[in-house]
Amino acid sequence: MTDDSTGDDLDALAYELDRAHVFHSWSAQASLHPMVIAGGAGSTVWDHAGNRYLDFSSQLVNTNIGHQHPAVVAGITRQAELLTTVAPVHANLTRGRAAERILDRAGEPFSKVFFTNGGADANENAIRMARLHTGHDKVLSMYRSYHGNTGAAVVATGDWRRIPNEYARAHVHFFGPYLYRSDFWAQTPEQESERALRHLARVVEAEGPQSIAAILIETIPGTAGVLVPPPGYLDGVRELATRHGIVLIFDEVMAGFGRTGEWFAFQGFGVVPDLVTFAKGVNSGYVPAGGVVIPPQIAASFDERVFPGGLTYSGHPLAMGSIVAALDAMSEEGIVENAAEIGRSVLGPGLEELASRHPSIGEVRGVGVFWALEFVSDAATREPLPAAGIGAIKTALIERGLLPFTADNRVHVVPPCIVTPDEVRTALAIYDEALTALDL
Amino acid sequence: MTDDSTGDDLDALAYELDRAHVFHSWSAQASLHPMVIAGGAGSTVWDHAGNRYLDFSSQLVNTNIGHQHPAVVAGITRQAELLTTVAPVHANLTRGRAAERILDRAGEPFSKVFFTNGGADANENAIRMARLHTGHDKVLSMYRSYHGNTGAAVVATGDWRRIPNEYARAHVHFFGPYLYRSDFWAQTPEQESERALRHLARVVEAEGPQSIAAILIETIPGTAGVLVPPPGYLDGVRELATRHGIVLIFDEVMAGFGRTGEWFAFQGFGVVPDLVTFAKGVNSGYVPAGGVVIPPQIAASFDERVFPGGLTYSGHPLAMGSIVAALDAMSEEGIVENAAEIGRSVLGPGLEELASRHPSIGEVRGVGVFWALEFVSDAATREPLPAAGIGAIKTALIERGLLPFTADNRVHVVPPCIVTPDEVRTALAIYDEALTALDL
Ligand SMILES: Cc1ncc(COP(=O)(O)O)c(C=O)c1O
Ligand SMILES: Cc1ncc(COP(=O)(O)O)c(C=O)c1O
Repeated sequence: MTDDSTGDDLDALAYELDRAHVFHSWSAQASLHPMVIAGGAGSTVWDHAGNRYLDFSSQLVNTNIGHQHPAVVAGITRQAELLTTVAPVHANLTRGRAAERILDRAGEPFSKVFFTNGGADANENAIRMARLHTGHDKVLSMYRSYHGNTGAAVVATGDWRRIPNEYARAHVHFFGPYLYRSDFWAQTPEQESERALRHLARVVEAEGPQSIAAILIETIPGTAGVLVPPPGYLDGVRELATRHGIVLIFDEVMAGFGRTGEWFAFQGFGVVPDLVTFAKGVNSGYVPAGGVVIPPQIAASFDERVFPGGLTYSGHPLAMGSIVAALDAMSEEGIVENAAEIGRSVLGPGLEELASRHPSIGEVRGVGVFWALEFVSDAATREPLPAAGIGAIKTALIERGLLPFTADNRVHVVPPCIVTPDEVRTALAIYDEALTALDL
Repeated sequence: MTDDSTGDDLDALAYELDRAHVFHSWSAQASLHPMVIAGGAGSTVWDHAGNRYLDFSSQLVNTNIGHQHPAVVAGITRQAELLTTVAPVHANLTRGRAAERILDRAGEPFSKVFFTNGGADANENAIRMARLHTGHDKVLSMYRSYHGNTGAAVVATGDWRRIPNEYARAHVHFFGPYLYRSDFWAQTPEQESERALRHLARVVEAEGPQSIAAILIETIPGTAGVLVPPPGYLDGVRELATRHGIVLIFDEVMAGFGRTGEWFAFQGFGVVPDLVTFAKGVNSGYVPAGGVVIPPQIAASFDERVFPGGLTYSGHPLAMGSIVAALDAMSEEGIVENAAEIGRSVLGPGLEELASRHPSIGEVRGVGVFWALEFVSDAATREPLPAAGIGAIKTALIERGLLPFTADNRVHVVPPCIVTPDEVRTALAIYDEALTALDL
């Protein structure tokens, strides 16, 4: 590439190198046509040619602070000049400061952080802690869930991605609440909550409470459809776990750090888990990072006994620098409050209004900047819109300059927490136009 | 902390925050006394107070290019200003360029790279590929090995870290060559090689070749003791794998990217595996990254079939920027050649000379900047030096300004690939002094 390469040349090169040399996740490799993304700012991304897209995917629901937040970029640059990497065994000030900020936001009773590189290994290590803390083996998780791609995390996962990866033992799955497609023949949220709890209690009883190390759930199952739990459900799970001495792990990899309009999603439900796993929003994914938030009681299990887990980049200074900068900026700029307010007064009502005019939207669910539109081909039977239909919506949205997040028969509406009311209105108009054009 | 905080204040603060809030890997938490590391350059690190240490650990054997190489720091800063993060599903020019550079160094027949966050998830995904490619389940790996801390990687690991983590199925372990403590009653390298191959062939036969997906080995087992395989061993393993249609995975997380004085350790043996996993040296750990190098034949298995693995930060632009910068700088500055030359003419001979004067050194093993000193309390019986002895050596080295890497009864001598002859001579003098002071 010479200096006078055009944006189109660079896009072509990026595409060509990708197709020649990059092996893609969760895909058949032959049929991919990736979009080139070269840069971004706030709620927008662009390619080399200058085509711009409103990013209502937040990539993989991780850029909570938006693209290229100057304070986080500066935090990375500052730490890059100081020290990028150090072994976990040594102490590093930036790491201590990152842990302090995370714990400050998690609140009582949490006291320590174990850092990892992402969400999967956060869950691996939380599961490990729960097993050794309890001396029990089994991990209960939901069929509608995603917990990462490594050995235990992918088998804790409930969706199709688990099936070809069943090499871990001691995992049991249960059904969670999802009134729109109830697995419990429920008619009301109260009934769904009560029956889902009854079902979980039965699974615990039948598996043997004395064999169970952990119940691992996404506070709000994300990729599975932004399944906001009905009132009382999480309290009931908490009560069940406490009663049987089971470690309750909330996976907040997607739901945490502003996405729901709270620092942690569990804070919106008034229910405190025993361990919390995080990644994505903690630094908006600017540097790979994740971790486990731990209370004194579980940490103390490993005061005298070796914790048998670790990784080269645990508490990586560059990642830590990005966490410090991201959390400080989110606090100073009221970014979590913005997510809450956007959800309450612009995005939530806007999506409800959209659904009222498009019969293909079977349900709107969400909170903060964490929403799903569930598409159906028949409002009465709730028959999911086929893949081709969602594919057509996706294409129509991209053509109109909006980068969407789609999963199964759904479009997830997951902009960054810094999204403005105007950007939301633009996006709502694009969703409306695309659905109108497709007569959906 | 105010602007006039002294270095000592900052060290105290870093220590205090660490002890209060950071949960450490592979440790009992109560008894830790971490050293504070604040910055570094080349082969040196320092704390806030200005105490300097020659880093002959390369942290966790990852800073192959040394600390804070200006070209890599600049590469990170440049990409940080362009775009830090993008979902794996999109194409990104920096990612394509990183893949191209890795493949260029791996040589024929490799054609694609699957990117991960570190070594453990690289191995997880290589294992997944091998299982689906062959349709077989079992993974054979060595008792003397470390492959990472996640579900499958930690059970593929052979050392003590596997024991509390046995939740994955279809893993089988075998003994590798290690003449100094032969598991095969061998007297010569030829015998050790031949018998280790016979043992592996028997394990393959007894497990059933048609049930085996992969043989996963570190090209040179690292943490287990820099166990350089004897002549013929890797050729024999290659031949066995080929004969039975088993995928041969070389874990080059520690051995790759310059450590042995080659881009990949396997290039020093003239043996080509089917999959290579990497992390650490690819970007010296400046940003968390790892991956799997894949040949066309295995990639093609997933042309029409979905590859069921993935992670949010696969091919993360900031990590990719650091890979491009690190590999370019390593080529331009002849850093791999330096590692080879240092090993051949300064470090190897120097360690042999050291051993000739200290009877506690039972064996010296290594190549490039990848060496181990094996300490014994009795040269005749080869009784390993007890933990307290290694602890004393460690303390004596740190007191003299050298940061060592220790494991079991060994000191691994693993400086960055950019280490100078003078720095090696300084280090050799420190090892000598410390051992002399301890009368070892
Ligand atoms: C709830 C949840 N847990 C875990 C993960 C895995 O995180 P990672 O991809 O960083 O391994 C994800 C990723 O989407 C997630 O949404
Ligand atoms: C040979 C080998 N494989 C895998 C790993 C795991 O890498 P990570 O700690 O990045 O997960 C290591 C780490 O030391 C290693 O030395």
